[in-house]
Amino acid sequence: MESNSANTQKATVIKQENTNCYVAVHIGAGYHSKQNAEQYKKVIKAACNAAMGILKQGQSANAGVESAIKVLEDAPITNAGIGSNLNRRGQVECDASIMCTDPNAFGAVGAVTLICNPIQAANAIMGVSSKGPDSRAGLIPPMFLVGHGAESWAEKHGIPTNTNRRHMITEDSLEKYSEYMERAFPAHNQPAGTSIMQINDDDDLMLDTVGAVCIDNRGVISAGVSSGGIALKYPGRIGEAAMFGCGSWAELQLASDNNLARVSGCSVSGTGEQIMRSMLAQDCAQRSEDIFTALHECFERFCTNPSLAMYPQKSAGLILIRQDLDKGSTGKQKKTW
Amino acid sequence: MESNSANTQKATVIKQENTNCYVAVHIGAGYHSKQNAEQYKKVIKAACNAAMGILKQGQSANAGVESAIKVLEDAPITNAGIGSNLNRRGQVECDASIMCTDPNAFGAVGAVTLICNPIQAANAIMGVSSKGPDSRAGLIPPMFLVGHGAESWAEKHGIPTNTNRRHMITEDSLEKYSEYMERAFPAHNQPAGTSIMQINDDDDLMLDTVGAVCIDNRGVISAGVSSGGIALKYPGRIGEAAMFGCGSWAELQLASDNNLARVSGCSVSGTGEQIMRSMLAQDCAQRSEDIFTALHECFERFCTNPSLAMYPQKSAGLILIRQDLDKGSTGKQKKTW
Repeated sequence: MESNSANTQKATVIKQENTNCYVAVHIGAGYHSKQNAEQYKKVIKAACNAAMGILKQGQSANAGVESAIKVLEDAPITNAGIGSNLNRRGQVECDASIMCTDPNAFGAVGAVTLICNPIQAANAIMGVSSKGPDSRAGLIPPMFLVGHGAESWAEKHGIPTNTNRRHMITEDSLEKYSEYMERAFPAHNQPAGTSIMQINDDDDLMLDTVGAVCIDNRGVISAGVSSGGIALKYPGRIGEAAMFGCGSWAELQLASDNNLARVSGCSVSGTGEQIMRSMLAQDCAQRSEDIFTALHECFERFCTNPSLAMYPQKSAGLILIRQDLDKGSTGKQKKTW
Repeated sequence: MESNSANTQKATVIKQENTNCYVAVHIGAGYHSKQNAEQYKKVIKAACNAAMGILKQGQSANAGVESAIKVLEDAPITNAGIGSNLNRRGQVECDASIMCTDPNAFGAVGAVTLICNPIQAANAIMGVSSKGPDSRAGLIPPMFLVGHGAESWAEKHGIPTNTNRRHMITEDSLEKYSEYMERAFPAHNQPAGTSIMQINDDDDLMLDTVGAVCIDNRGVISAGVSSGGIALKYPGRIGEAAMFGCGSWAELQLASDNNLARVSGCSVSGTGEQIMRSMLAQDCAQRSEDIFTALHECFERFCTNPSLAMYPQKSAGLILIRQDLDKGSTGKQKKTW
């Protein structure tokens, strides 16, 4: 039987004319149904436009990434924010992270239910932690918060939160939850369960982490990810979207022998446990080969990683942007892939 | 004023005669008071003996690491398990992780309160996740669980848990909590707060993550860490002890041009946010230089890491063990540092 779904990562890159700003957005690895193709395209376009609007106003790459991912989180058809995959207890628990070259910082939240847009909390955590220890008491601000603690931090810092833990659950996500649960844990008088990885026609299946990478007018790069995690995950499970080095990476590399600097940013999607063990975002963004060789080598290494030998199937996709800049005059673009 | 405390990492390495088993244990970076020196030595010795006893019975390096760290967690004077630093709300929240070369796997828990020995839960998570997807439903077991989810998983898998969230709090940890809170958040009619990093004589101050590295008779290496985190941390804060690549690392490196294989294991302690940003355990364990150069280079890189520029003070310590083995005949020791 031919499937009308495709295991692809849908992604778009746009550049605004007369600026050096770039936006790349993806809605995650997984099987995206043809029947929802138009909706997916609309969401990606809206996310790109939101970020580019921000960057054109002269705002930071971080603000661009936050605004793009906020659009993706607010779209119920993606596996991030409202409409996320439900965990084994029928709850939404989201992970998100963001990394940037200026400030050279990282922020993340994990297993959060009440935060409307987890990427906003991750960005705010990055902002506070990038300032270093509290000048009065020497307390070191967190760079990664989970669960109720993260929700309370977000509320205290003016990030919109819900009061009802069920607000992020949609009719569609509940329907998929029931179907997956019946397949994975059939009643005693039913046939043995079948893998929830089995594909139905016209179905969005096993959608993964969404993300964005932005370069602003100053040549600063920021990369972010947001995810509801694997369907039927164990409550409290943290995936690659919250993990340093795994879901997103942004780096400024200074060449010692010439006048060039390079920014490199990566946003990853796929099976979290596999991406975490291989630290895929960091591995990809730090490669020095040309970009196509880098991508090839990076996936080759992912597929042959001995610490992933226990997984018969592997799933990962990513977006990677690099830009060469004149050293000392950030913002002057030399070459962008 | 001369301080009678020292910012050192107390560590011990032992080898059993007539075996190839090694155990290294540390009780964390921080200021350890002279008056408690004997107690610390006793705890380290007990941890080493517990692990070596396990390894001599032919059990795995993982079992050795778990037993050593369990002793450290059960000692109220360390910042792990019972007696851990309290967070800003006066609660214990622990992180722990373990990594091993056989199975080539990792497991972690974060922000857990009810699990008596967080290292036991991390080891059990590693054991289950190393087997790959559930054969029936295709569900992928977690490698990192936090909060209530982690506690419920532990209970279901027979890991001892408490019913009372206050069971891990000791008189000493409460006393330190009050003192730190008064310093960091003085009442309105009191003088401005002073840094909680300020050192008092005869005081154990800002103790960090504890850990162990073991090599068993088969030449398998395992490294683990456990921590109550930074004193007065924000609730839900995850530190390096739970993060892949940051607190512990264990690796088997095969040389392509000769008949040697090398196992390398590292367990790190210090300021979590700094160790996470620099992925210190991985960076140190993967270095190919001789061990002293590797340690020097690793700390040089840590101290000059541009993503740590916002921290006026940096704190990290680690233990690193390497062993060269004959390829194909694991267990035959060639050289151990």
